[in-house]
Amino acid sequence: MTTQRARRPGPSVRTRVVEHTDAAEVAREDRLITEEPLEIRVRAGASGPRRAWVTMRTPGHDFELAAGWLVNEGLATASSISRVAYCTDAELDPEQEFNVVTVDVGGVTALPHRHETTSSGSSACGVCGKDSVLEALTTRTSRPWAGPRPDASVVRRLPEALRERQTLFARTGGVHAAGLADALGTLSVVREDVGRHNAVDKVVGSRVLAGEPAAAACLVLSGRVGFELVQKAAAAGIGSIVAVGAPTSLSARLAAEAGIDLWGFTSAGRTVRY
Amino acid sequence: MTTQRARRPGPSVRTRVVEHTDAAEVAREDRLITEEPLEIRVRAGASGPRRAWVTMRTPGHDFELAAGWLVNEGLATASSISRVAYCTDAELDPEQEFNVVTVDVGGVTALPHRHETTSSGSSACGVCGKDSVLEALTTRTSRPWAGPRPDASVVRRLPEALRERQTLFARTGGVHAAGLADALGTLSVVREDVGRHNAVDKVVGSRVLAGEPAAAACLVLSGRVGFELVQKAAAAGIGSIVAVGAPTSLSARLAAEAGIDLWGFTSAGRTVRY
Repeated sequence: MTTQRARRPGPSVRTRVVEHTDAAEVAREDRLITEEPLEIRVRAGASGPRRAWVTMRTPGHDFELAAGWLVNEGLATASSISRVAYCTDAELDPEQEFNVVTVDVGGVTALPHRHETTSSGSSACGVCGKDSVLEALTTRTSRPWAGPRPDASVVRRLPEALRERQTLFARTGGVHAAGLADALGTLSVVREDVGRHNAVDKVVGSRVLAGEPAAAACLVLSGRVGFELVQKAAAAGIGSIVAVGAPTSLSARLAAEAGIDLWGFTSAGRTVRY
Repeated sequence: MTTQRARRPGPSVRTRVVEHTDAAEVAREDRLITEEPLEIRVRAGASGPRRAWVTMRTPGHDFELAAGWLVNEGLATASSISRVAYCTDAELDPEQEFNVVTVDVGGVTALPHRHETTSSGSSACGVCGKDSVLEALTTRTSRPWAGPRPDASVVRRLPEALRERQTLFARTGGVHAAGLADALGTLSVVREDVGRHNAVDKVVGSRVLAGEPAAAACLVLSGRVGFELVQKAAAAGIGSIVAVGAPTSLSARLAAEAGIDLWGFTSAGRTVRY
């Protein structure tokens, strides 16, 4: 046991900067978005916790992030998560206490192959399997969204509604946001994170921990849309993705395959449907 | 052997979209940035190739991406790379031929621990090691940059110089760029990719494959600055990072520790030094 108090990191930190313009150099205070590692551990049954992932994230809503990530990756279901807690292991550096989350999961015995694919080189590939690259593209889809979907006029209002709730972005200018909305454009939950995939995991995790379904009419994104984000939306059963930024080729393809409406370059003035 | 011709993916693809504004709905053609997986395999000595990483990337400069990633991660040095080639394995789906790159490396026998940390859950963490989270933060630093560094007036010109060479961004609006520049603001190489970390790996890899040192006065970035990008800059021996977007708390801390000047929110009108 240690007597040191753990430092709980905040979502932004103060720093001194110098701003340079043509006219002047001005020293002032600024705020940086906090980026710290979060280690997610999974404990299933009687065995000890196993490290499942380390992500660089903005502290806050860490339990949602862990739960949402596990569910989006197909490693847990909402009903199989029995407990989420910061690691209290006495061996852990107190500085890191709030950077390690352990999730108790019932009924999961092995982590799936996909995570091994995108990661370590510890497994030889042997004869190059024809589907080794494609394993990275495995998708976990929920039942497609069967409820109402927003029309273009609702879609065009969503980025502004999201922005009004991006308090960390207003303070730091360096953070993504994701939100869930209904088909009439009402946002139910908004989360911010330095990683856009984390923001989506937090949004989904907020539903999981509240015992509510993650499926929703709209997932609203402050940035671009990559393959990974559509994959998470498909896993959650989202009907439409509304993004401020551009989609990629693979995200458009996957959205079409998963029956997800994809809107990009969205602002009050226009939106583009892919 | 197969008689099918492999499809070599281009950096952007055509698509049909509908643009919605207050006034009209207009069907038109658009271009999406291509996002496809790249599997990087490493062959060291007599053993077969081992899968080291899969990244979602924009096709183009794939050999640079593979070489730059290996060097940035400390898995190879410029002189240890003897050959980079697309995988010609007969077992490979022809569709994936240009999505798998094999790098022959001399003198590397094992991939380092860091990659196992940030990845698979196949290794039990046992007693929670106090440094398990911090392993993800391991930095590989080269000798600090000892040459001249740009002043603020040079720094403010760099984003526009970068933008002029972002041809894929102009076409798709959905892609990051990274470039190397000297202390007078002359860009030597610019690379674009759907992943900002890939763009940096390509820039470094272009130097590696040309047999030139990756160290440079400036790394110019079209977006935000996260921990991972500073880590790559430190590994390459960069003197200054000049970014259009915001830095994170950890990126500012690491830059200070590595002796890297960090400039954020940079435009022709202003820049902020952290």
